[in-house]
This record gives sequence, C-alpha cells and structure tokens, in this order.
Amino acid sequence: MASQENQENVRNVKSAWSRLKGFPDKCVDLVTTSAREAKNFGKEDPRRIVHSFKVGLAITIVSLFYYFDFLYDGLGVSAMWAVITVVVVFEFSVGATFGRGINRAIATFIGGLLGVAAHRLASSTGNNAEPIVLGFSVFFITSIATFIRLFPKMKERHDYGCMIFILTFCLISVSGYRDSEVIEMAHTRLSTVMIGLSATGLICIFICPVWAGEDLHNLTAANIEKLGISLEAFQRKYFETTRNDKNQENKPPVDGYKVVISSKSKEESLVNFARWEPRHGKFKYRHPWDQYIKIAGHTRECAHRFYALYGYLHSEIPTPPIEISKKIEELCTTMSLECSHALKELAIVIKKMTRSPNSEAHLKNAEIAAKNLKLLVQSGLWPESDPLDVIPAAAVALLLIEIVCSTVKIADSVHRLSILSKFKSVDPARTPARFGVTVE
Amino acid sequence: MASQENQENVRNVKSAWSRLKGFPDKCVDLVTTSAREAKNFGKEDPRRIVHSFKVGLAITIVSLFYYFDFLYDGLGVSAMWAVITVVVVFEFSVGATFGRGINRAIATFIGGLLGVAAHRLASSTGNNAEPIVLGFSVFFITSIATFIRLFPKMKERHDYGCMIFILTFCLISVSGYRDSEVIEMAHTRLSTVMIGLSATGLICIFICPVWAGEDLHNLTAANIEKLGISLEAFQRKYFETTRNDKNQENKPPVDGYKVVISSKSKEESLVNFARWEPRHGKFKYRHPWDQYIKIAGHTRECAHRFYALYGYLHSEIPTPPIEISKKIEELCTTMSLECSHALKELAIVIKKMTRSPNSEAHLKNAEIAAKNLKLLVQSGLWPESDPLDVIPAAAVALLLIEIVCSTVKIADSVHRLSILSKFKSVDPARTPARFGVTVE
Repeated sequence: MASQENQENVRNVKSAWSRLKGFPDKCVDLVTTSAREAKNFGKEDPRRIVHSFKVGLAITIVSLFYYFDFLYDGLGVSAMWAVITVVVVFEFSVGATFGRGINRAIATFIGGLLGVAAHRLASSTGNNAEPIVLGFSVFFITSIATFIRLFPKMKERHDYGCMIFILTFCLISVSGYRDSEVIEMAHTRLSTVMIGLSATGLICIFICPVWAGEDLHNLTAANIEKLGISLEAFQRKYFETTRNDKNQENKPPVDGYKVVISSKSKEESLVNFARWEPRHGKFKYRHPWDQYIKIAGHTRECAHRFYALYGYLHSEIPTPPIEISKKIEELCTTMSLECSHALKELAIVIKKMTRSPNSEAHLKNAEIAAKNLKLLVQSGLWPESDPLDVIPAAAVALLLIEIVCSTVKIADSVHRLSILSKFKSVDPARTPARFGVTVE
Repeated sequence: MASQENQENVRNVKSAWSRLKGFPDKCVDLVTTSAREAKNFGKEDPRRIVHSFKVGLAITIVSLFYYFDFLYDGLGVSAMWAVITVVVVFEFSVGATFGRGINRAIATFIGGLLGVAAHRLASSTGNNAEPIVLGFSVFFITSIATFIRLFPKMKERHDYGCMIFILTFCLISVSGYRDSEVIEMAHTRLSTVMIGLSATGLICIFICPVWAGEDLHNLTAANIEKLGISLEAFQRKYFETTRNDKNQENKPPVDGYKVVISSKSKEESLVNFARWEPRHGKFKYRHPWDQYIKIAGHTRECAHRFYALYGYLHSEIPTPPIEISKKIEELCTTMSLECSHALKELAIVIKKMTRSPNSEAHLKNAEIAAKNLKLLVQSGLWPESDPLDVIPAAAVALLLIEIVCSTVKIADSVHRLSILSKFKSVDPARTPARFGVTVE
C-alpha cells in the first residue's frame, strides 16, 4: 500500500516536473504562433497595419495639447477630452469614423445645452430644492434617453450619440453645482471635442483613407463572383460525383455561397457607414447606396437556392446513376456555365463601373438552355428507370432553372445600379465576349 | 409668357402656403405616431422600460458622489469617472454589463500600470528626452493595441477593453508630466471606476435582472418551435394550394423559418454575454452554453431546407395537379405533422428543462412515414402523368424526408444538452402524449 502511494507520488512529481520543464517551450511556442498569426493577419489586409499607425499618430499629436505648457494653459484639464475623443471616435473606415464623430459632436452640443438648462432651472429654485430638482431631472432625462437608445433604428445609427448625450448632460448638469461657470465648462468641453474630432477627421481622410463605400462596392461584386464560382464548381462536382471520378477529392470545397448568406450584417453596417462618407473617387455625392442592399437581397436569395442545390451533393439521397445524369448533363452544363459566366460578368461590371452587354448574352443562352431542359424533362425521358434515381436529377435540373431566374433578378438590379450611378458604357463591338462559350 | 410666369408664381406661393399651414398638423402627427410607437415598443418587452429606469437610478445615485461635498472631498474631479463608468457600462442584460465592466476594470488596471511605467521610464531619461520618449511610447503602445483590437476574436469579446486600455494608458502616461503624483492619480481613477462598477453591478443584478443566458435559452426553444409551426403551415398551404382552396388568402404568411436563419448574430452575441454571467435560476455555474451554438447550427441547417421547401410554394414551376398530390398527401401529412410535433416537443423540453419521451415517439412515426414515402416514390406511381407535374411533388416529398433527418440531428443535440445540464426526467407513464396524433 505504502509503496503504491510512493509510486503514485513519484509519478505526480515527475509529471509536474516535466510540465514545468515544458513551460518555457510552451511560452516560446505561444509567442511564435501569435507573431505568425499577427503577421498573416496584417498581410491579409495591409490597411490594418496602416490604420493602427494612423490611430497611434492621431493620439500622439493630440496628446501634445495636454503635454506642452503653452497649449495646456488655454484648455486646462479639459484637454484630456481631446485625447479621449480620438481614442473613442477613430474607427477603421472613414464612414464609421465620421458617423461616430458627427454623433459625438451633435450629442455633446445638445447634451451640453440641456445640461446648462437643467442647471439653471435647478439653481433658480433655491438652495434646498436644488439637489432634488437636479436629481429628478437627471433621472428622467437619462431614463428617457436610455429608452430611446433601445429602438432598433436608433441602436443601429445613433447608439453612440445617445450615450454621449447622457454623458454630457450628466457631467454638465451635476458638476454645475460645483463650478459656477457652467457655460464656460460646456464651451471648453465642446471645443476640446472639436479639436479631437478635427485631428481624427484629417488623419482619417488624408492618410491612406479606408472607404466603407468602396468596401461595400467590392464586397457586392465579390459576392456575385462567388456565386458564379460556386455554380461552376457545382456543375463540375455533381457530374464528376455521378461519374465517380476519383480526382474530386483533390479539389478544394467551394462553399463561397455560404459566405454570401452570412455577409448580411456586414453589408448592412457598411451601407450605414457609407452614408456618412463625403464624395470620393468613383463615388459621387448621393451615390445610390440603397441599391446595394437590393442587389445583396437578390444575391442572398440566389445563394439560398445554392444551399438547396449543394444539398444534393451531400444528401442522403443517392446520386443518380450515369445513364440518367448523362441525359441532362449537356443542357445542365450549358446552363450552369452560361449562368456562371453571366454572374462573373456582372461582378466585373460592378468592379469596373462600366456597362457591358456580355452578361446579357450569357443570360440569354442560359435561358434558352433552361427552356430546352424544361422540354426535355417534360418529354419524360426515363420511363424505364427507377423513379428514386430520376427525381434527384430532375430536381437538380429544376433548381438550376430557378437559379437562372434568380440570376436574371440580380442582373436587373445591377442594371438599375448602373443607371442610377451612371456607369460608363462600352462599345459592344470593341469588347469581345470574355468567355468563349456560346452554346446553343 | 408673363401671365404664364405669373400663374407659376401664384401656384408656387399657394403650395408653399398650404405646406406651411399643414406644418403644425404634421408636427402633431409625428408626435402622436412616435408616442404610439414608443408605447408599443415598451409593451412588446416591458423589460425595456424597467431597464431605462434602472439606468436612470444608477446614474442618479452615482451623481451624488459628485454632488455632495462630503463625498466629493475624498475623490475630487475624478468622481466624474464614476458617472462615466455607469453610463458607459450599463447594458441591457447582466452578461453584457458584466462583460463590459470586467473588461473596463482589467483594462483600467493594466493601462494604468503601463502608463505609470511609461511615465517613470520617461522621467528617468532627463528633461530634454522626456517628451520624445513619452511620444514614442504612446505612439507604439497605442498602435499595437489598435492592431490587436482588429483581430476578430478580440473584437468580439474585448474590443471595449482594448479601447479603455488605450484611453487609460494615454491619460496616465501623458498627464503624468503635469501631475507628479501619478500613482495617486492612477489609484483614484481605478477606485472611482470601481465605485461606478459596483453601483452598476448591484442595480443590474438585484433590480429585475435581465439574463442573457435565459434569453438565449428561450430564443433557442422559440426557434425550434418556429420550425415546427412553419412545417405545419407548409403542409397545410401546399396541399391547399394544389387544391386551389380559396381560404388560403386569409391565413397569415408563416415565415418563421426566415427569422431562424437571420438570428445567427443574435445567438452568438447572447452566448458571448451568457458566459460572463454568474450562476442564476435554473442555470448552474459552467452551464454548457456552447451546446446552444451547436443546436442553433442544426436548427439553421433545417431552416435552410425550409427555404428550399417554401420555394415550391411560390416557384415558377406550377404546382402539381390534384390527382398527383393526392397520392403523396397522406404520407407527407403524417410526416410533416409528426415532425412538427417532435419539433414543438423539443422546444417544450428546452423551455421546461424537463426530459420527455414524446418527441422521440413522434420522430419515430415520422421516420416510418418517411420510409414508406420513399417506397411509394420508388414504386413509380405516375407513369402516365406529365413528368413536369410529378417532379415538383416528388422533390417536395424528398425534401420533407431530409427535414426529418435534420430534425433527428436537432433532437440529438437537444438530448446532449439535456444530459450536459442535467434536465429533470419525467416518468413517461404519467405524461400523456401532448398531441394526440399517432398515425400509423
């Protein structure tokens, strides 16, 4: 018994020792993996690194106000608010920064105004009633502002503004008791906030600006392109699977359509930010940002059909045998490829902001193939086969036909965007069809 | 020409006048509609009103520190930080508040520590070098912290903490030049933050607390129930549409499954918040919150299949004629209803945290119906019909079979949750099947 316990002890000590010995190695491992991750993260989008340095620069510059005597004398301790403003307002994109900045400026102004008013009201009631009046006004104003903050529309666009309003109101109205020069205080707070905001705004816009509008524009194009790639990949995979091709394992899984479905919240916040941005680059004042939401809606609808389509790749339902899939393969392939090319062309139209007739031509081909496929399915080609084999193949065919319809909707909404934001036209005679496939 | 211009002017003046006359009415309209909206918004979830008053109360209480002389003397102007902390930290749910609060406390501590260190380092280098050393340290530390903040994992859980870290670091290190008692300052800042945090925490937990964990639990149950309702509604609508029943217009559209698909980000943030919450009510310490993410994943997968299913209600493909749908109706109805009951039972299991064998019984019935349906489809019942009529009906049948598979997955993950969080068992003999349908 004793020797067993001894052995147990020895084992425990040994394992603890080996764990302790391994600790420095683990630390080194952690540091190196973190460093590698950070490097990749920065490489993935170098704007992240630039953004970090921009923030550092803005904070350092504004800190000077706090640091040097001749600047400090004018503003006093309140100079701190300039630093806080930069830290709190500086966001990744210009739109997000402007949204926060404008919210902060307006909220500080209104909050300060109301705070001064509450202070005046309270001090006019006499010394005894003052704390009570002040307490009640703080309670009610903050409660109402908090309630308003909860509304989805406010939460989306003005959550930060409401918070700053509450903050400024409290600070001005309550501290008013102590500092009789309340208006002076409100004025200093507003001016320091303005110093912080201008430093942030200037650095944000003039040093490698990141435009949310541009990101939205590119994301929309990329999502449509992803659908095109997914469709092509589906066509390849489905007919390979039915042929039991062994190469399929080597190809990476293409599930770009899933990214499209999950990018809804990102698109919405980008549209929100883009609305705050001034005119820049290719994007004029009053660029139709709402149209992107419509395009995204159609794109997502199409992506949902992809979900159903890809279900037939991994489904419990066996894939149809070759003699069945063979019959629909040609038309399905034409339809998928033409539709995929149309989607890719639409992505290029958005990316280059130049109208092109290619996507229409591809779509027309896809629609003709769809019509023929419908006729083929209708003609009842497989009376001798097992219906359980036929149905998945036919369902895939019908889904592909629906995807063509979805693509037409996407094309229409992109066309509408091209009219609203006046894309350039290109002479069709001078641009050869990018993809040589024109099957009829 | 002149008279035309005159007429134009008169018309302009008239329209301007009528617009001006309508202005007060419009204002009244705006106020009444806003008030009505606010009332409905509060009625929808009364916790919103309670939350607003809680925030108002907390701010009012903490303002007292700033207001009364005997409290103010101890803390000075820094008492302001207590007010700011409450405004900034108080969120709707306990988890969100705690998350922000703990982030704020830890970030203030680390930021303060590093700020003091930077200040010491700078002042040890002599007067001339001091601003340069300080400037560089602010620049690098804030740049690095901003970069770290961009990582998705950090952004999700510690975005606020990073911001507060930058803020505290800047304020302490830079203001150190002015105020030689830097440590005293860091200490005051930390203690005022703590006062704000404790006031927030106490009011948040002890006055009508809103638990993110409970919300997540209920949301998960509600989503599963929505699928059950959607499935039942689909069954009713599909077979009504094929029968051209005129009553269908009167029933409200049931698209609960769309809500399920779009609730991903809400679930993720609730899980994030729930992790910060202490043990409460039915939820023990270390409640398996991650399991909810898994359930939500399966639920969403099922909802995607609903998307495909509902596509057949509004699709370009004509609904099959009655003689075809009639043949599959019975089995499809059994399958849909049993599956729908199983989903609703699972929702009840989660809601009441009590295991029940009913869902399993319903699922078994659904699986038997699915098997029979497969056989029916396989037997090739419709050799004489138009294939374009047959295929949609058969595709719907196959999709329903897949939904049964999805439901089995949901049931498994709910079962796993019931084991992990030790749901009570109920004697099956004493609980009658809630839904009397047991078709065989």
